[in-house]
Amino acid sequence: MKLLRYGPAGQEKPGLVDKDGKVRDLSGHVKDIAGDAISPEGLSRLAALDPASLPVVEVTRYGPCVAGTGKFICIGLNYSDHAAETGAKVPPEPIIFMKATSAIVGPNDNVEIPRGSEKTDWEVELGIVIGKHAKYVSEDEALDYVAGYCLINDVSERAFQAERQGQWTKGKSCDTFGPTGPWLVTKDEIKDPQDLKMWLEVNGHRYQNGSSATMVYGVKYLVSYLSQFMSLHPGDIISTGTPPGVGLGQKPNVFLKAGDVVTLGIEGLGEQRQDVVQG
Amino acid sequence: MKLLRYGPAGQEKPGLVDKDGKVRDLSGHVKDIAGDAISPEGLSRLAALDPASLPVVEVTRYGPCVAGTGKFICIGLNYSDHAAETGAKVPPEPIIFMKATSAIVGPNDNVEIPRGSEKTDWEVELGIVIGKHAKYVSEDEALDYVAGYCLINDVSERAFQAERQGQWTKGKSCDTFGPTGPWLVTKDEIKDPQDLKMWLEVNGHRYQNGSSATMVYGVKYLVSYLSQFMSLHPGDIISTGTPPGVGLGQKPNVFLKAGDVVTLGIEGLGEQRQDVVQG
Repeated sequence: MKLLRYGPAGQEKPGLVDKDGKVRDLSGHVKDIAGDAISPEGLSRLAALDPASLPVVEVTRYGPCVAGTGKFICIGLNYSDHAAETGAKVPPEPIIFMKATSAIVGPNDNVEIPRGSEKTDWEVELGIVIGKHAKYVSEDEALDYVAGYCLINDVSERAFQAERQGQWTKGKSCDTFGPTGPWLVTKDEIKDPQDLKMWLEVNGHRYQNGSSATMVYGVKYLVSYLSQFMSLHPGDIISTGTPPGVGLGQKPNVFLKAGDVVTLGIEGLGEQRQDVVQG
Repeated sequence: MKLLRYGPAGQEKPGLVDKDGKVRDLSGHVKDIAGDAISPEGLSRLAALDPASLPVVEVTRYGPCVAGTGKFICIGLNYSDHAAETGAKVPPEPIIFMKATSAIVGPNDNVEIPRGSEKTDWEVELGIVIGKHAKYVSEDEALDYVAGYCLINDVSERAFQAERQGQWTKGKSCDTFGPTGPWLVTKDEIKDPQDLKMWLEVNGHRYQNGSSATMVYGVKYLVSYLSQFMSLHPGDIISTGTPPGVGLGQKPNVFLKAGDVVTLGIEGLGEQRQDVVQG
């Protein structure tokens, strides 16, 4: 299934995409794409519905594809070639940091350049959406706790991240720095999350052109690893790092400016388009 | 006012402490100590109630004193003497990092030592609770966005934090690592948040014995500073750093073990008591 949330920010309704690409309303069946609705049992109930029985809706705005996100956990330097372009080594175990959940926006909402920013950058990433409480789970059982996957732009301010005193959170958490969606694609639809093409363009120029095949620590490992440090809850998102081609990796550096248009996509997970505006 | 939440975990009800120290139930007036209830208008409405008109309740468990916390932001090395004891310099601007909100527990709930941990440590901290959406606010107006203050134990696993690859989040976010409360004390009751005694004991031995007077970056500065990087929302908590006396600062180091009892307090904000257990 491709699950989604549509409508004005803060008032989104749940929906799904049918086999013809039409969006159907799910509000008669679940309150939101969140919590119990994305548990294994909840997803089974949704999968048993006949999409043709659901009202077709015209979508003017997509919201973030999942709600009730308590944690927005990111993995740093998780593609060997991206690590190289930033001058860093691949870490011997995953680097984890948090984005503020208040940074989450819809996939096509504006991205705001924060005041004082000169180095706002992009990162196309594969997001893992947790569907079930996970604590101390093994790599073998990790996928039991995953509801599905989504597309994320891990927008990053490089000066805030690296030149303004320790801890990356500062450059990762600005409002609008987490476009998420359009869809939560359930894991049954993604044959191999470690073999998905991913790309990102700014004003039509392709900067990132990679594949999740070059991810260092894969989906199963990450879910298991993180669950050793903290409980993962339904709706939590793990953004798994970016392939090469970020602005910081260009020679000379390229950063976003108001008026730019960012487009990105991951095979099977849909596409995003953001207008960049001054915050 | 001293606002609080009481009852079993996940089913807490709102309450307040009356002038005789009795807990009175607020569920007839607000749904929770969260969101609009802690806005300036919400707090005015609560302050206008006659506590004597509210039912007295017997509290067997205190929950975290605020709900709906979207961000649990911490300030690192924010006491000059604590920075010195950890071998670090006071940073030229605040270091910020995130604790997972899933780490938040009640003030007297057990603290779990995570599996594989050998360096679980304590940190008594003054917490700021946001009451109103703050974005790009000045230091002068910062307190308008603060609902009040609370006591926090910023429990920290030093090896996870510093020896397991970049970013402190990993050692700060374990389940139960954020005892919060007992009370959200509204700001009108705290004459000067930069002059509060604070202390922490393990098994009756006093390790931390400081004052918020030695905080490097104060409450107003922090709220204004953070709001330049991200929106702060009602229920967000800023934990402002710890004075000297953490386990990592002892010679030799002292860390928590199952069976230990941690007690801590801040002048005007109440006390906490945690049993340490193996996770």
